[in-house]
Amino acid sequence: MTTPATGQRQADGGAPARRDAEETRRAILRAARHLLARQPHADITLKAIAARAGVSPPLVLKYFGNKDALLARVMSFEEDAAALLDAPLDSLGRHMVEHLLRSQLEQGADPILRIVFAPMHREDGEILRANFRTQVAERLTARLEGPDAGLRAELAVAMLLGLGVMFGIARGPRLRAEPVPRLIDRYAPGVQAHLTP
Amino acid sequence: MTTPATGQRQADGGAPARRDAEETRRAILRAARHLLARQPHADITLKAIAARAGVSPPLVLKYFGNKDALLARVMSFEEDAAALLDAPLDSLGRHMVEHLLRSQLEQGADPILRIVFAPMHREDGEILRANFRTQVAERLTARLEGPDAGLRAELAVAMLLGLGVMFGIARGPRLRAEPVPRLIDRYAPGVQAHLTP
Repeated sequence: MTTPATGQRQADGGAPARRDAEETRRAILRAARHLLARQPHADITLKAIAARAGVSPPLVLKYFGNKDALLARVMSFEEDAAALLDAPLDSLGRHMVEHLLRSQLEQGADPILRIVFAPMHREDGEILRANFRTQVAERLTARLEGPDAGLRAELAVAMLLGLGVMFGIARGPRLRAEPVPRLIDRYAPGVQAHLTP
Repeated sequence: MTTPATGQRQADGGAPARRDAEETRRAILRAARHLLARQPHADITLKAIAARAGVSPPLVLKYFGNKDALLARVMSFEEDAAALLDAPLDSLGRHMVEHLLRSQLEQGADPILRIVFAPMHREDGEILRANFRTQVAERLTARLEGPDAGLRAELAVAMLLGLGVMFGIARGPRLRAEPVPRLIDRYAPGVQAHLTP
């Protein structure tokens, strides 16, 4: 059984091969995300994605069908929102802040931050905005009780986006020097206040 | 006296000409900001900035000297930070939220949001980050009292950045449907809590 991540190595059993396949898939997604943060959708080539992921273009096709399907996948927040919102409502603020920081630190990817690159993608930016609204903001809204749920969801998401920008893009040195649990303690109560006022 | 904004009209006195000159200057800055949110620093031409501002390339040079000086100006937060922080500490949270929302609504420009486009500018993104740190975060830090001032300043700025992204880039429909004073009432207390805990 060929393992796509190395291209050559034989797996002893099924598990290592599956893990390598999963790693390759993630490397391709990471490469596509990286490029989508730096150049317009229309300018990104299959070759550039493959080169950045360290795989061959046919392997990208094998995993994702075609370039547009892969980019559509990267422009969707569906899976990320599921993980971001995977906590009981009364501790959701802490969970969201922790999930965002750990995703940035451990996977080098933020679950929702790519919405900030919408202007660069011109008309494709609207896809990103529409996905963000339905898959993140409205999904969170559906979890909330009480008045102004839609507005409160957008304000909570705003706080998360800001933390993502300050940590991952502006690279605030004080933020980055702070242990994650202390950041959660400081920032999550404000997020929670919008969720359960 | 020729007024640059119209290119032809004679001013009766000094004031209208000065106003038109100021409008032209602002139109050029707005055009440069617009382009910097959509393409890498290195790809932006003087001609494109002039075309978008509706003026001639020589007029851009007259106002800003050269393209790099103009882009350096747009990559600086100096003036914007002065306006953003122009309030007493005990009401600074409200002032910053209001200033950000009114700048977006009334001038179509956010005082600090362009930091999010740093990744697109590659090495020039570092200039944006360094400016952001010294001109925004550290300037706010200097205003704060008590422990962890640097961290608290970054968290307050994070909240503002998030509001800017949600309002101006993700274009959250609930946020945009809400009157500005109500948004300030909901969001500013969280910002203020970092400034004066």
